Amino acid sequence: MKEEILQFIEENKWSIVKKYILEMHGSDIADLLDEIESPLNLIKVFKILPKDLGAEVFSYLDSELQEKIVSTLSDKELASLIDEMFIDDAVDFVEEMPANIVERALKSSNPETRAIINKFLKYEDYTAGSIMTTEFIDVKENMSCSTALKRVKKVATNMETINVIYVTSPERILSGVMSIRDLIVADEDEKIANIMNENVIYAGTDTDQEEIARLFRHYGILALPIVDKEKRLVGIVTVDDVIDVIDEEATEDIAKMAAITPTEKPYLKTSTTKLWLTRVPWLMLLMISATFTGLIINNNESTLSSGIYGILLTSCIPMIMGTGGNAGGQASATIIRGIAVNEISFSDFLKVIWKELRVSLLLGLSLSIVCFGKILLIDGLIFGVAGVDALSALIISISMFVTIILAKIVGASLPLIAKKCHLDPAVIASPFITTILDILSLLVYCSLATSFLI
Amino acid sequence: MKEEILQFIEENKWSIVKKYILEMHGSDIADLLDEIESPLNLIKVFKILPKDLGAEVFSYLDSELQEKIVSTLSDKELASLIDEMFIDDAVDFVEEMPANIVERALKSSNPETRAIINKFLKYEDYTAGSIMTTEFIDVKENMSCSTALKRVKKVATNMETINVIYVTSPERILSGVMSIRDLIVADEDEKIANIMNENVIYAGTDTDQEEIARLFRHYGILALPIVDKEKRLVGIVTVDDVIDVIDEEATEDIAKMAAITPTEKPYLKTSTTKLWLTRVPWLMLLMISATFTGLIINNNESTLSSGIYGILLTSCIPMIMGTGGNAGGQASATIIRGIAVNEISFSDFLKVIWKELRVSLLLGLSLSIVCFGKILLIDGLIFGVAGVDALSALIISISMFVTIILAKIVGASLPLIAKKCHLDPAVIASPFITTILDILSLLVYCSLATSFLI
Repeated sequence: MKEEILQFIEENKWSIVKKYILEMHGSDIADLLDEIESPLNLIKVFKILPKDLGAEVFSYLDSELQEKIVSTLSDKELASLIDEMFIDDAVDFVEEMPANIVERALKSSNPETRAIINKFLKYEDYTAGSIMTTEFIDVKENMSCSTALKRVKKVATNMETINVIYVTSPERILSGVMSIRDLIVADEDEKIANIMNENVIYAGTDTDQEEIARLFRHYGILALPIVDKEKRLVGIVTVDDVIDVIDEEATEDIAKMAAITPTEKPYLKTSTTKLWLTRVPWLMLLMISATFTGLIINNNESTLSSGIYGILLTSCIPMIMGTGGNAGGQASATIIRGIAVNEISFSDFLKVIWKELRVSLLLGLSLSIVCFGKILLIDGLIFGVAGVDALSALIISISMFVTIILAKIVGASLPLIAKKCHLDPAVIASPFITTILDILSLLVYCSLATSFLI
Repeated sequence: MKEEILQFIEENKWSIVKKYILEMHGSDIADLLDEIESPLNLIKVFKILPKDLGAEVFSYLDSELQEKIVSTLSDKELASLIDEMFIDDAVDFVEEMPANIVERALKSSNPETRAIINKFLKYEDYTAGSIMTTEFIDVKENMSCSTALKRVKKVATNMETINVIYVTSPERILSGVMSIRDLIVADEDEKIANIMNENVIYAGTDTDQEEIARLFRHYGILALPIVDKEKRLVGIVTVDDVIDVIDEEATEDIAKMAAITPTEKPYLKTSTTKLWLTRVPWLMLLMISATFTGLIINNNESTLSSGIYGILLTSCIPMIMGTGGNAGGQASATIIRGIAVNEISFSDFLKVIWKELRVSLLLGLSLSIVCFGKILLIDGLIFGVAGVDALSALIISISMFVTIILAKIVGASLPLIAKKCHLDPAVIASPFITTILDILSLLVYCSLATSFLI
């Protein structure tokens, strides 16, 4: 389907292209534009779209394509495009553009839109203010339902959502909320004050977007009113923007756990240098910190590698360090995710540690028993590694046991402590925990080995 | 606030408790019930709630609490509770209960509800059928808008959402969609067929819930109609359930990347044995597979640890293996997340490999240069490790370079290949990639070291 249309575009069959495109959804048209190679054809297709659809499609495009299109528009076309977009999309667009285009965009849009966009640009990133829209429906407490419904009908076409209607006092203070359903089923003469729900969930413009997502999760709402410091209604956040936030936050956490600095751009659109920059500091840090493990091995090597157990002890280092890292990673990933979706907070600290202690005892027992058998059977009998006997197998298995317990406790407690100290649990997680665990597990291993086997 | 109410409950001040509770949101009441310790008080508070609020609160509770409450209800009370719940919540409830309660629940609910629940129980987990609800509004093409609006008013109170209205043919085939907004602003006499949007996005009952989430993301919709094989409308999925799906999928991916079998239960409600079960197989597998790395070290140890470079070479093993694992983990986490949010597919394979190749060249160069310096300065000058000279530093740095390139290519390509083979990219990711990379990096390191330094 998409391939066919691209073909028609190549062949300049514009009437067929138009016919197909006008039946497509905005986000599918945006996908199509993304695949048109000739800039001239890109503009031609964009100009086929009627104003409102054009504005919708434009808001789905990434900033590179937006810039290409805007550079070919007249000031008047640009103004009409911006006025047609929903305010939150227009703000996103303006934020991404280079200064000269921003200037053109603001200059040519109408003064009202311009004022709103300018106000939005002042909200900090990742706050409710930066993701809200000002297109919401508000009615007054003393209106009758029929008057309110008339107002809804009048303004409905310009709103991002009409499913939730907010009630404000004459001073624009948020005082109630109702769904379009409440309004439709109510008696025509009923006063709004009597059918509205006074118990409104709301947030401030400076509330963090993670907290906003938490409110949507917890209350299963479709829109959240945003108020200023005087509790005056200034905007709403809609659920589609919250889905973006939830996706973004999960992507960021996964990146941080994998020791990457998060970026907002999709992978395929991120430049090689940018990718390099997001990865190199962490790899560098982790590589340098491996100096410590190297030093521990150096200090113990003369004792470790001498004697009949030398070869066995050296060859088990990766297993002990690896299992420590994996066991700690399991605990930290679980706790970090639990914190992210608000299932776990610092007040659960003791509960978490107690749980991890019990789990790690079970894990430590089962793994050290298997480890004992593995060393005797696989390493000893099958591969005939020198130095395998009951004593060496026992000491290595005990190291395994202690390492797992330490790994679980460190892995589970560090993210919680980080959260308490207002640090990012996910950043603390991977790089730091791995390094700490590498050092701990080596210390345990070397001291047990030198005490009992040398 | 919550503490105060719990205090009032302890003190049996029921009229105050009631006053507070009736002003709270359903999900907050559910949180409160979760913290009441006496089962008797739990039931007392639940029975304070009016029917509809009770059903809402009940649907927010976890299955343990649900079971406690249900066991104290009469058959009649149970029937009324189930009939009052939204169908999808009732199905979730029935799915979690032990057989005897399911039997009671189905026996006592009304025949219509029972039929629907029974039908739902047949849909497979993680499909659209299993998360949809049957409470939607449908109108007919030939209705006038005023007739349709009357129908909406009549059925609105029983629906989970009235924001989207579906249009069906006399045979119940899905033929169009409209928002409540379209209906409100339209002329009263206009035919539905003229204002509906025929270009409906829909999915089948057996569509995977990940695909459902993708459609919500892509089209920014609030509800998605679900059809059977004959394209008859059988249910809708609403955006609040999709947020749960999105959270669940991210949690699962994070668990798998950390080598944990995913569970649906929150961490604090999962038993110690269950947690042990989700973690032990992977740790076991990874521990056993460390036998290979051990063997490689064994085979090379006699050569590695002999000679003047012995101590340096052994102490650098953790650094080489660690950097390989970290570099591969960065690539695989990025690609797995890209696949999950539909930014990357198998058709991008060559693009991805080409990008990772360039990034890994940059990373390999920068890290190996720093590695060279680190060995000469930190290990050699500061800590005086034996065997540090330009040649050994160079060989170790070259191993670092090759390891990083291999790690990035393996880390990026395995998830894509897994996806292509219909395996789960996230499961393949962590455990397998780590093991493969450990082996590859050791082989590179040992063969370079034995060729040039022994």
